Amino acid sequence: MTHKIAILGASGYTGAELVRLISTHPTMEIAALSADRKAGLPMHQVFPHLRHLDLPNLVKIDEIDFSQIDLCFCALPHATSQSVIKALPKTLKIVDLSADFRLRDPEVYAKWYGGTHDALACQKEAVYGLTEFYRDEIRGARLVAGTGCNAATGQYALRPLIAAGVIDLDDIIIDLKTGVSGAGRSLKENLLHAELSEGAFSYAVGGTHRHLGEFDQEFSLLAGREVRVQFTPTLIPANRGILATVYVKGEAAEIYKTLAEAYEGEPFIKMLPYGEHPSTRHVRGSNFCHVGVVADRIEGRAVIVVALDNLTKGSSGQALQNANLMLGEQETMGLMLAPVFP
Amino acid sequence: MTHKIAILGASGYTGAELVRLISTHPTMEIAALSADRKAGLPMHQVFPHLRHLDLPNLVKIDEIDFSQIDLCFCALPHATSQSVIKALPKTLKIVDLSADFRLRDPEVYAKWYGGTHDALACQKEAVYGLTEFYRDEIRGARLVAGTGCNAATGQYALRPLIAAGVIDLDDIIIDLKTGVSGAGRSLKENLLHAELSEGAFSYAVGGTHRHLGEFDQEFSLLAGREVRVQFTPTLIPANRGILATVYVKGEAAEIYKTLAEAYEGEPFIKMLPYGEHPSTRHVRGSNFCHVGVVADRIEGRAVIVVALDNLTKGSSGQALQNANLMLGEQETMGLMLAPVFP
Amino acid sequence: MTHKIAILGASGYTGAELVRLISTHPTMEIAALSADRKAGLPMHQVFPHLRHLDLPNLVKIDEIDFSQIDLCFCALPHATSQSVIKALPKTLKIVDLSADFRLRDPEVYAKWYGGTHDALACQKEAVYGLTEFYRDEIRGARLVAGTGCNAATGQYALRPLIAAGVIDLDDIIIDLKTGVSGAGRSLKENLLHAELSEGAFSYAVGGTHRHLGEFDQEFSLLAGREVRVQFTPTLIPANRGILATVYVKGEAAEIYKTLAEAYEGEPFIKMLPYGEHPSTRHVRGSNFCHVGVVADRIEGRAVIVVALDNLTKGSSGQALQNANLMLGEQETMGLMLAPVFP
Amino acid sequence: MTHKIAILGASGYTGAELVRLISTHPTMEIAALSADRKAGLPMHQVFPHLRHLDLPNLVKIDEIDFSQIDLCFCALPHATSQSVIKALPKTLKIVDLSADFRLRDPEVYAKWYGGTHDALACQKEAVYGLTEFYRDEIRGARLVAGTGCNAATGQYALRPLIAAGVIDLDDIIIDLKTGVSGAGRSLKENLLHAELSEGAFSYAVGGTHRHLGEFDQEFSLLAGREVRVQFTPTLIPANRGILATVYVKGEAAEIYKTLAEAYEGEPFIKMLPYGEHPSTRHVRGSNFCHVGVVADRIEGRAVIVVALDNLTKGSSGQALQNANLMLGEQETMGLMLAPVFP
Repeated sequence: MTHKIAILGASGYTGAELVRLISTHPTMEIAALSADRKAGLPMHQVFPHLRHLDLPNLVKIDEIDFSQIDLCFCALPHATSQSVIKALPKTLKIVDLSADFRLRDPEVYAKWYGGTHDALACQKEAVYGLTEFYRDEIRGARLVAGTGCNAATGQYALRPLIAAGVIDLDDIIIDLKTGVSGAGRSLKENLLHAELSEGAFSYAVGGTHRHLGEFDQEFSLLAGREVRVQFTPTLIPANRGILATVYVKGEAAEIYKTLAEAYEGEPFIKMLPYGEHPSTRHVRGSNFCHVGVVADRIEGRAVIVVALDNLTKGSSGQALQNANLMLGEQETMGLMLAPVFP
Repeated sequence: MTHKIAILGASGYTGAELVRLISTHPTMEIAALSADRKAGLPMHQVFPHLRHLDLPNLVKIDEIDFSQIDLCFCALPHATSQSVIKALPKTLKIVDLSADFRLRDPEVYAKWYGGTHDALACQKEAVYGLTEFYRDEIRGARLVAGTGCNAATGQYALRPLIAAGVIDLDDIIIDLKTGVSGAGRSLKENLLHAELSEGAFSYAVGGTHRHLGEFDQEFSLLAGREVRVQFTPTLIPANRGILATVYVKGEAAEIYKTLAEAYEGEPFIKMLPYGEHPSTRHVRGSNFCHVGVVADRIEGRAVIVVALDNLTKGSSGQALQNANLMLGEQETMGLMLAPVFP
Repeated sequence: MTHKIAILGASGYTGAELVRLISTHPTMEIAALSADRKAGLPMHQVFPHLRHLDLPNLVKIDEIDFSQIDLCFCALPHATSQSVIKALPKTLKIVDLSADFRLRDPEVYAKWYGGTHDALACQKEAVYGLTEFYRDEIRGARLVAGTGCNAATGQYALRPLIAAGVIDLDDIIIDLKTGVSGAGRSLKENLLHAELSEGAFSYAVGGTHRHLGEFDQEFSLLAGREVRVQFTPTLIPANRGILATVYVKGEAAEIYKTLAEAYEGEPFIKMLPYGEHPSTRHVRGSNFCHVGVVADRIEGRAVIVVALDNLTKGSSGQALQNANLMLGEQETMGLMLAPVFP
Repeated sequence: MTHKIAILGASGYTGAELVRLISTHPTMEIAALSADRKAGLPMHQVFPHLRHLDLPNLVKIDEIDFSQIDLCFCALPHATSQSVIKALPKTLKIVDLSADFRLRDPEVYAKWYGGTHDALACQKEAVYGLTEFYRDEIRGARLVAGTGCNAATGQYALRPLIAAGVIDLDDIIIDLKTGVSGAGRSLKENLLHAELSEGAFSYAVGGTHRHLGEFDQEFSLLAGREVRVQFTPTLIPANRGILATVYVKGEAAEIYKTLAEAYEGEPFIKMLPYGEHPSTRHVRGSNFCHVGVVADRIEGRAVIVVALDNLTKGSSGQALQNANLMLGEQETMGLMLAPVFP
């Protein structure tokens, strides 16, 4: 049986990544692609790398007959996403990639995203899409909220440790290096090749990055108390990939054991041998996430390093993984593509 | 039915690319991987991006039981390749990725590769592996010789034109920009990031590149007379991708028509609309090849631009395409992966 | 004696490059910087790499008292440039970096730049700024027109050869690889890091690049007949640098000798030994231009390769070189900075 | 008066950077260049970007007449450096760029560098070359030990804070992103363009990087007690530049004030406005160091970000700055070159 898929916001990088992944998925068929400003164009004029595919032209959202759609990916900007999703049929399965349904508390949403939430009923219904930790809820969900790509990376390092109580909750630092595709296809001066290549700069320094809302929510929930981490992202001259260096206080061997047990059997989360740590180049273009743990020379401290591809495991790959669950398919279907190296 | 596959020379980039592609091929199973100096190691120590796969450890060639192998990819350096292949069972299907069996005339081989050929019987038997033009011979072949990656790119621009007699044979220039993975995983100063990134330099300028042997052989054969082209490769700071800018004398519209007819129905060669031209970024990581034709402002001249990924369509993807044919499988099996962008 | 310098259009890359070069020039002082949309800002908010300098704030052009200025660099877009320069004091020395005064024939200007020229008196007065070939005229000029960066590169390969009559004028191909800073600080999708890095694509294929106007004008003038070249630029993922591969028909040894004689004693044009060819990485950040000549395997054909930094020798360095001449200073003053490598 | 300069180890990146800087220094002249394995070659065959300079050929060290040399830069590997320097005339002024004379305690040297120190008298004599903090000692020194490039970066963030007692000494984390030229011109697989570009990976995770020896020595000395920091370097795909993100516990405003006072009047260390932070791209190719301070959202924590060019301020520029002092010249002479952007 083939599932009919719609992708809203198909002119952005996460939309294109969804098309790439679904193009070889055995039981999904792309039935509709929307892009407001590019409506009317064939997809390959917006993304020439998809030229070989027989895809529907881009349309406006209201041109789509959602009664023919089995599952809809929504890759729109936040704020737009909530108003669109609110208006979609209430029975339609939806995987949202925006920030609109990640935060459970509307006041927290307002604090980080600067507007009142306009689709509270949907928000209440939404399941947080970090597959490995919400698998059962996702399987039965109608609306799944994709996580932030940085938020996913940090959580893969920390969730099992916080849950197991093996690290100091008051001294957690996530220093994260990220490729530029996470910023989307936006025309900003500091995303130009001439400005970004050959250098590095941080942003949202000091705890102002929006993905902190997710860290706060999820870590506090896990710990049963308020947890506040420090988080600094640094933009590096690469297109894909997040490398999170996470500094914690705790015994490295116990930390390793806790993570290894948590991820045993996980198809996409791969523990490196103790003392080794990953590179973003070795997960690029794939849904895999590599995790390493190293003891620091200072007794009682450890460094956890996590690498994943922000567009795949951090975003569109996660979305497809969740969609597989929601549609009753095998979770890994269409997602076992090996990383592209070199 | 599953075909048992061996890959010799699995510690190089083309070997790793074969593993990547075969890892999601529905009817192939990697049964043996060889790498002389790395024998004994698990593959993921040599290529950590393949960590998620359950692969046989690297072994020496003579540890492989070839009676259990249905097809063998040989990704060894030239000269080594001929001595290895000569000693393999005469009934084993082989796709060779080296230069050893590309040139039909042993003297021409000696001229370009600087040593006498040591496996003349195999050389006689070998079929030139440019799939779209040798499809029938490849289907029945035991030994297929993969083409040079630059040689493939130039031939996609020119073969139909030379065959149809629509361009001047004495004024053909192939100016080719190439990513660095074509040079293999070799430790050379000019392949270091610090030396290569942010710049461009040519090599083998003036007609000394070995792939000219293939151009001479194939184009002369097609034309029924000696054809000598000019060919300059330039190394650019990219890992994958070849962009060939081919300057010819002939009517652009007729050239376009000739190419479009030649490639009609080809699953991997995609003609762009007349007047448009491709980017390497739009074929990266895939087996697709994009071809464009533009008329020059000077009457009677045209520019043909071809883009492909040297490791996929230019090498390992081509090899798998040929292997599919040799094994009686659908030619495109395992090869329809969309390009990775951005 | 210190010369008071104004730079109009200081918020672009060529403006910033002028500031960089002049900041260590012994006899120049930056007295005014204009940038229309950024007026009022300190320069280091627009270009933080100039933070260490004590510079005047950005102002609008009409806030500058030109009676206090000895020489004005005009780094504005074409069309804007002509209307601004027309209104400046008629005695002010000006080096213009735009395209507005490069073409002598207003109809040719209209053809390539799509608008009637509005400052014909200035255009008549302007001297073409390719220093090595117009040195004497520049020394006495009031208004000098900087060349296109691609146009400069191609001319360094070809002018002496056309003048000496040692190549076939009807078969000249300039295949040029260029870094992205030549496109300026403009917000275009294909200049984003995510779209440009790791790939290559051509533009203005088939003879539509505006710098062809300069080639046509200058080469025809030199030859005493109409000369039309083929010219294809390809954007590569580098910020600075142009590599021109020039295909000509002629004797390589004679071509080398002609160029070597032409550039003997030139402080910035460096001939490589016969048979060698340059890399853009070896001129980056400097005013030097490296030239190589290689004989092709086809009798009677040669390849000339030229490398320079588009922002320095191709634009702002050239402008400063010309300004030195116009102010009676040593031509090389402030320009002997070594290339930055790696 | 012109100072005669020798550079030992001129075939490495720091050697070439010294030549670049000295080539426009008003009172220095390069009298000798050594490179053991490249002895006999002209410098431009090893570094073609220096082609425009009239330099002495490379020689072996024992071919140099040191009685004609006023100051010698020693850019040799550690261990080699100590045996060479021990044998040089005892009156010769030397700036060493290796690790051999950075650590005062021979046992600490043995611990980090794995061999007994063989030039203890020289080691005793050597002054630690972090100019801003050892200026007076350097002025009178005969032998100055250049700092590690990472060690310099971290110290610019922390020294004034440790000296002033405004941060918690037991919770200091230096997360450092570094370009690849710091690894030198060494042929290692993970420094190849194909392996390094488009990604990021950490090394020496957990406190095993040798520059920790310098941090321990200097910070403990300043604090009057043992100080141990955490330090993780991550290699990013850039050639030049270090970005250090330093996490401390202390009041951000006090931290900013302390640093701003410490660096007031320093010609090369530039404080950004409070709350802003630097980019490596804005110091590339220059001797400048940009420092920013941001308060974290968690009360009592701050993030200090420091950017410098590892080859210039982190190594050869520092060496030249020290040489200026040792020769009685103005400290900034030859070093005010503006960063190269873009």
